[in-house]
Amino acid sequence: MITRKEYEWAQGRAADLMRTAGLRISEEEEKSIEVVDFGLGRLDEEGVQVLTLVQTQRISVKVLALFPHQTEPEHWHPPVANDPGKEETIRVIEGTVYFFVPGPDSLSRGFIPKGKESCYTVKHEIVMKPSDQITLEPGKKHWFQALDGGAVMFSFSTIARDALDKFTDPDIVRITRIAES
Amino acid sequence: MITRKEYEWAQGRAADLMRTAGLRISEEEEKSIEVVDFGLGRLDEEGVQVLTLVQTQRISVKVLALFPHQTEPEHWHPPVANDPGKEETIRVIEGTVYFFVPGPDSLSRGFIPKGKESCYTVKHEIVMKPSDQITLEPGKKHWFQALDGGAVMFSFSTIARDALDKFTDPDIVRITRIAES
Repeated sequence: MITRKEYEWAQGRAADLMRTAGLRISEEEEKSIEVVDFGLGRLDEEGVQVLTLVQTQRISVKVLALFPHQTEPEHWHPPVANDPGKEETIRVIEGTVYFFVPGPDSLSRGFIPKGKESCYTVKHEIVMKPSDQITLEPGKKHWFQALDGGAVMFSFSTIARDALDKFTDPDIVRITRIAES
Repeated sequence: MITRKEYEWAQGRAADLMRTAGLRISEEEEKSIEVVDFGLGRLDEEGVQVLTLVQTQRISVKVLALFPHQTEPEHWHPPVANDPGKEETIRVIEGTVYFFVPGPDSLSRGFIPKGKESCYTVKHEIVMKPSDQITLEPGKKHWFQALDGGAVMFSFSTIARDALDKFTDPDIVRITRIAES
């Protein structure tokens, strides 16, 4: 749960990060930025801001902004009906992204959010700079975070069905609830 | 046919346009920029420069650069086997793009390349600025051009099979031939 005021404040901060990264986005697009707190109510620690540029029945393009020290929790994209699951390429636009996938534990520069050790199981660390990119086949677990300065990246993928994504943390609710009062 | 020297010169010019538009691209990516003269041997009039960021069996992401007064010729993306054809979204990053699709003839600010009247049949003009985008369903004819200053745009699409694209101009050969001498 997040208040309307917090939501709009986060939208503006995310839009600033995107524009500072050199992206040209419209006023209307800024207002459409989705602030995702994963139902955890601690946006600054675990959350992400998402601007959807393209969403059709075949492809999806999003801009993701992470505030400094914000983490997108571990998740994966499961098969849906005849679709083998979302295939996604992340490309860094600005900042440094600490990206974690299955493989030998090399977590050293990033960090697991406090008290959440059981919710982050893949620990192979990849440090990504602007123009670096990684393609994730469907079903591959991943999480990522920014440290100082935050980060902005593209997500290029097959059709996104965010509400069906699977998370390691059982407390997560993917669709943000906003308190209007 | 284009000489190796012309090809590399055009790559550098396209990379400059992309970087001036705010894109962060690597040296390796610059060297991979495809200079497309459509086999017509008049790159400055009819051609496009293409940087492929993502190309999988499901999606494709490209950056397109047009030099001032350069035109990408009329074409469409046909069905291929079980695929209904490429679905493509063009989003302008920098500059103004004059985009032409089927509909009432409103061609006024753009122009058909000299002597090529028979090769440009759709004349509904859409003037696109940075952050404007258009989604083209498979099979829809389109062509586009830049005037002063050139332009840079994204192409987000389902899998691209460029060699199978269809062109109105019968003289076009999609894959560039380079003269090495």
